[in-house]
Amino acid sequence: MSLKIALAQINFLVGNITANVDNIIKTAIYARDELSADIVVFPELTITGYPAEDLLFRSDFIEVANNAIYQIADGITDVAVVVGFPERDGDNLYNSAAVLYQGVILACYRKQALPNYGVFDEQRYFTAGIQPCVFEFNGIFIGLTICEDVWKNGIIDANKEAGAELLLTLNASPFNAGKIHQREAIICQQVKAASIPLFYVNQIGGQDELIFDGASFVANSQGHIVFRAKEFQEQISVIEFDGNNPLLSSCAPLYKEISSEYNALVLGIKDYVRKNGFQGAILGLSGGIDSALVLALAVDALGHDKVEAVLMPSRFTQDMSNEDAIKQAEILGVKYHVIPITPAVNAFTDMLAEVFAGTAKDTTEENIQARCRGVILMALSNKQGKLLLTTGNKSEMSVGYATLYGDMAGGFAPIKDVPKLLVYQLARYRNSLCEVIPERVITRPPSAELAPDQIDADSLPPYEVLDPILERYVELDESAEEIIAAGFKRDDVVRAINLVDKNEYKRRQSPPGIRITSKAFGRDRRYPITSGYRGI
Amino acid sequence: MSLKIALAQINFLVGNITANVDNIIKTAIYARDELSADIVVFPELTITGYPAEDLLFRSDFIEVANNAIYQIADGITDVAVVVGFPERDGDNLYNSAAVLYQGVILACYRKQALPNYGVFDEQRYFTAGIQPCVFEFNGIFIGLTICEDVWKNGIIDANKEAGAELLLTLNASPFNAGKIHQREAIICQQVKAASIPLFYVNQIGGQDELIFDGASFVANSQGHIVFRAKEFQEQISVIEFDGNNPLLSSCAPLYKEISSEYNALVLGIKDYVRKNGFQGAILGLSGGIDSALVLALAVDALGHDKVEAVLMPSRFTQDMSNEDAIKQAEILGVKYHVIPITPAVNAFTDMLAEVFAGTAKDTTEENIQARCRGVILMALSNKQGKLLLTTGNKSEMSVGYATLYGDMAGGFAPIKDVPKLLVYQLARYRNSLCEVIPERVITRPPSAELAPDQIDADSLPPYEVLDPILERYVELDESAEEIIAAGFKRDDVVRAINLVDKNEYKRRQSPPGIRITSKAFGRDRRYPITSGYRGI
Repeated sequence: MSLKIALAQINFLVGNITANVDNIIKTAIYARDELSADIVVFPELTITGYPAEDLLFRSDFIEVANNAIYQIADGITDVAVVVGFPERDGDNLYNSAAVLYQGVILACYRKQALPNYGVFDEQRYFTAGIQPCVFEFNGIFIGLTICEDVWKNGIIDANKEAGAELLLTLNASPFNAGKIHQREAIICQQVKAASIPLFYVNQIGGQDELIFDGASFVANSQGHIVFRAKEFQEQISVIEFDGNNPLLSSCAPLYKEISSEYNALVLGIKDYVRKNGFQGAILGLSGGIDSALVLALAVDALGHDKVEAVLMPSRFTQDMSNEDAIKQAEILGVKYHVIPITPAVNAFTDMLAEVFAGTAKDTTEENIQARCRGVILMALSNKQGKLLLTTGNKSEMSVGYATLYGDMAGGFAPIKDVPKLLVYQLARYRNSLCEVIPERVITRPPSAELAPDQIDADSLPPYEVLDPILERYVELDESAEEIIAAGFKRDDVVRAINLVDKNEYKRRQSPPGIRITSKAFGRDRRYPITSGYRGI
Repeated sequence: MSLKIALAQINFLVGNITANVDNIIKTAIYARDELSADIVVFPELTITGYPAEDLLFRSDFIEVANNAIYQIADGITDVAVVVGFPERDGDNLYNSAAVLYQGVILACYRKQALPNYGVFDEQRYFTAGIQPCVFEFNGIFIGLTICEDVWKNGIIDANKEAGAELLLTLNASPFNAGKIHQREAIICQQVKAASIPLFYVNQIGGQDELIFDGASFVANSQGHIVFRAKEFQEQISVIEFDGNNPLLSSCAPLYKEISSEYNALVLGIKDYVRKNGFQGAILGLSGGIDSALVLALAVDALGHDKVEAVLMPSRFTQDMSNEDAIKQAEILGVKYHVIPITPAVNAFTDMLAEVFAGTAKDTTEENIQARCRGVILMALSNKQGKLLLTTGNKSEMSVGYATLYGDMAGGFAPIKDVPKLLVYQLARYRNSLCEVIPERVITRPPSAELAPDQIDADSLPPYEVLDPILERYVELDESAEEIIAAGFKRDDVVRAINLVDKNEYKRRQSPPGIRITSKAFGRDRRYPITSGYRGI
């Protein structure tokens, strides 16, 4: 007895149940007719998309999602369809997977391990299932599991004990650097220990701050990968199970980390723009490395004709900044505008002259410049229906080296979770494919150009020092003393983490950005603004 | 045998363990020496404040919090101290209550019911306890419970079965309108059913969006309230337990709802400013009802000398707006500035003339005006270290009738959770105490004054229609069809909820505000921005 199992690594839109149901039926028909699939397996919570967040509290939404199961069951014959959906049973909601075949629900499994850490809030919505679900299909006993289930000890074993000969796993496992290796390593180890083959299908696509990377795979009972789908792309593939094990199929090679990160950022921009119906994107192009990288990403995501750059020089802007910005816009073939900000800055300076009389110049004046740029960019965004991309990186977001409503103004922050050193690496990586960022942008010292001859290193430790401190403090939750013990200067550590602590209020108002590290600012790291905690 | 039990309804600062420990010891000494207390009971998670959010993931923070228990135990004799703390045990963290007496930990209870809904994320941090904890003190058997425990069936009964003669309950129960009545009704019913007296101590104070209202109380075993502390104020009181029941003590009368709401808003502003170390507050004063109410609240919270108002008329501002704004500033004795925005608006208009050539005027031009005001206000805030208060109400936040980086610019949004009709009620309530808002501000039709002769009713249903629709859709999660069935016009419902759905991106970047309803925008309502769900 053998079985052809299709993994449907599809990009769904959260909340649009009607479109998702159509997509499921269309995909299942394709898998049946073109790939001769017996079963087609979709990702976790297929019908609603993942994560649907508090939409799951809406009874109208849940009702539509539950009815959708019958629509799908009635909508296709001669192939079994395994879909995820939020299953209502009385007052309880379950994160469930249903097997639909010839108009009936053949089996329904309720996820047992509900993650409630990091970016996950599943215990806010769901009740945990309490038992495995093994169903027979074409004489083969198949166990159902959902995402976190196969990361935990015990659930795979329980399926095996319940008679499962193979496991199907529905997933919405978000990307971060290194995650694919971690995912395969942990799950293959479990599979090998239990000696049971596993078919793992992951969602792909961008959803606000999360990127789902796909990379669906099949592991045989020895824990070897015998199939892997591409990262960051939709793919529908069939893998044959011969009664004992899945047969060796195509294995997409894994990207290098830098390439995965770049592709994740491109997909994140593309899906945010597309799924939210924007006409394209605009950004302020300063001649610095951050906006240069965001421009390159945006063009790769949307195409050069959908992206617009705005140069907004001030009297502190060096000529080479303008030259480099124009050069990059021309290389990439994007439309650009040059709008000097001096008239607006002067207007505000005059308007505030009386109330500011007798006060010393400070960051207030720098912020006014940044905010004039924010007003210009938002005006262009509003007028054209284009998404304004902010260009701040994670190092800046950490220490608050950015102006609220100034350079932080915008709808989406693509490199918000990219530390400055990685910004450079990504720029070099992109140029290694073909040069789109002028070399001088990468080699000159970084500066906000908000005051004469200002460079970042005047007010911050060098990024070679700052970034590792921030990684330890923000991502790894290390204490100041631990960081100092690891060899960093006390002064640098104190300065950096004081800034992180004090700038939570700014981050709270920043636009969402793409998560590519193990802990991004956003739903991943929830700190109080009002806080007497000082890391040092 | 009798026992004097002090309830310490204290305002703690989240994260500042050192200050909180000092405060606990000082309070316990006061309760012992001045009130002859045998036991003093503090609120939930006293040592860290509540909610400490992801600070609870920091091992340095948890270590300090656990050590603090011994500092308190060593810091005071001859009175038992009951404090809440995040108890680490191996890899698990518990939301615990320790009884400290004569240098030792007499008992330690682990919270069993961990709320993970609404504003609560306790399952993100804590492992649930599995049993009651009853300890003997002066020959009396006392059960410990924490907040959610006493809202659930079973836990009070289990304490009774374990021999408890009275219950102590440590709480961090946030305010919303009607909550105090709900809290007392539910808990007194439980107490009466189990026939066991209960001492309930609640935190007070503002913490970002949450207000803890205090109103600690004692219920006797018949379910009658025999003591109630004041709302929105610190209070340390002793209640005697005679061996059977608590003796009748003072019962602060409950405020009317409108008065509670007003006081909650005042406390919220006061604590946000104080706990975050601002020099005071500023706001844009338009002559409209929203900013008039925020000014009144701010002055009540901070005093007139800490508040500054800025009038920023444009060519669309009516004379009566300026007159009324100045009149209110003068009534309240707050410093005010008048800074017309025309020069900046003209500068931007000129700067954008070329790129906007051939386009029609739309909301872009309205937004530029609002953003010029944002730049002015933020400049004043930055220069003086004063918190900028935004003045948008919940109706506006719901439908997105506000400009990002314009009138939404600011650090704190006091009336963000106050629907427009309640804004009027609160203004009238405040004026009923003494008139601080010019009558014309309350009676004239609301307008954003961003275009000639504009009034809100041109683009929105009247607030008498809009507010109830929003309450049903946002707070009660009713579907469009349910709202229409309740008697609202389909057109109004469609218009309102489409706007709510489309404006999640704006709300995501809004400053935190004070939660006074059963569901506020913020940690209470977590919606995806990218969403294909349409409520209609």
